[in-house]
Amino acid sequence: MRVLGVDPGLTRCGLGVVDGGTGRTVSCVAVDVVRTPVDASLANRLLQVSEAIEEWLDRYRPEAVAVERVFSQHNVRTAMGTAQAGGVVALAAARRGLPVVFHTPSEVKAAVTGSGRADKAQVTSMVTRLLNLPHAPHPADAADALALAICHLWREPMRARLAEAEARAAELARTHRARLAAAAKAAAKMKGAAR
Amino acid sequence: MRVLGVDPGLTRCGLGVVDGGTGRTVSCVAVDVVRTPVDASLANRLLQVSEAIEEWLDRYRPEAVAVERVFSQHNVRTAMGTAQAGGVVALAAARRGLPVVFHTPSEVKAAVTGSGRADKAQVTSMVTRLLNLPHAPHPADAADALALAICHLWREPMRARLAEAEARAAELARTHRARLAAAAKAAAKMKGAAR
Repeated sequence: MRVLGVDPGLTRCGLGVVDGGTGRTVSCVAVDVVRTPVDASLANRLLQVSEAIEEWLDRYRPEAVAVERVFSQHNVRTAMGTAQAGGVVALAAARRGLPVVFHTPSEVKAAVTGSGRADKAQVTSMVTRLLNLPHAPHPADAADALALAICHLWREPMRARLAEAEARAAELARTHRARLAAAAKAAAKMKGAAR
Repeated sequence: MRVLGVDPGLTRCGLGVVDGGTGRTVSCVAVDVVRTPVDASLANRLLQVSEAIEEWLDRYRPEAVAVERVFSQHNVRTAMGTAQAGGVVALAAARRGLPVVFHTPSEVKAAVTGSGRADKAQVTSMVTRLLNLPHAPHPADAADALALAICHLWREPMRARLAEAEARAAELARTHRARLAAAAKAAAKMKGAAR
């Protein structure tokens, strides 16, 4: 399975493609950071991010796209730009019918380092080791994009199995409720007939 | 000039096309609200918003797109979805080379009612009157989209003139600085020759 991880942003947008092998082996296919000029209009910056994503989807043909979920409230303006860049990425994937999953920063950190509170340096160091890279990806956005892809590869089977189990449980509950309703109806009919 | 106003959102996205005539006359070409299902994935909801915008751009051929700028911090999740929907709208316009301008809610309110603090009812009532509509647009997102388009039609010429004046002032300042530098150089040369 091949996953494109995206650490969305307008100033720097991290992109990383990772292949998942058997077990937990992962390998890096490509990694880069796309930048858009600060003085360009928001619409044009989004267009540049969109074009870069389309190009990566064409070139690397990932089977899924993992995007960082933005929550940050530190700087609303930046958070909005990041959210919009993430939206544009999700749109490009949805256009091609590719599944898009958003992962929170702590999910990503926990997946690659074992701790949801790991710092940037720890994430970069683990990504470098896990992917057997000759040197650490730079800037941090590039390492984050790879971490997102790895997180997706490792979490997704579990998430999918959980979703399946939940769907099965919901189905059982529905069947049970239907049987109860049928039994109640039958009981009411018998009562009516007994009168 | 024809403007598409968009009050972005995932649950409800208001769309309004307004033609500007001579002076301050404005007329409504189309108004509607696009809804996307709450239980669909974020990527799919963004895709539905994107497709609706593309269809409106094809059908009504506006010369500019006015989008509401989101600032709200009340509910981060909703604000992010709204920002992402706005980003997708801006992207669709940028793809066609159309200018996209973001207006804040208070700019829009001030433009149509005279007060940046007007409430929803006042905005709807003024939009209905300004566009000579047989009845008030409903829901509020539809009225907001029309208000955005009107705001753009009325503010844009002023904004463009201001931007032009600023560019001219910057050019004058540059010329002035260049002349000063040349004069200083000439003075230094004369001093050198006099020695």
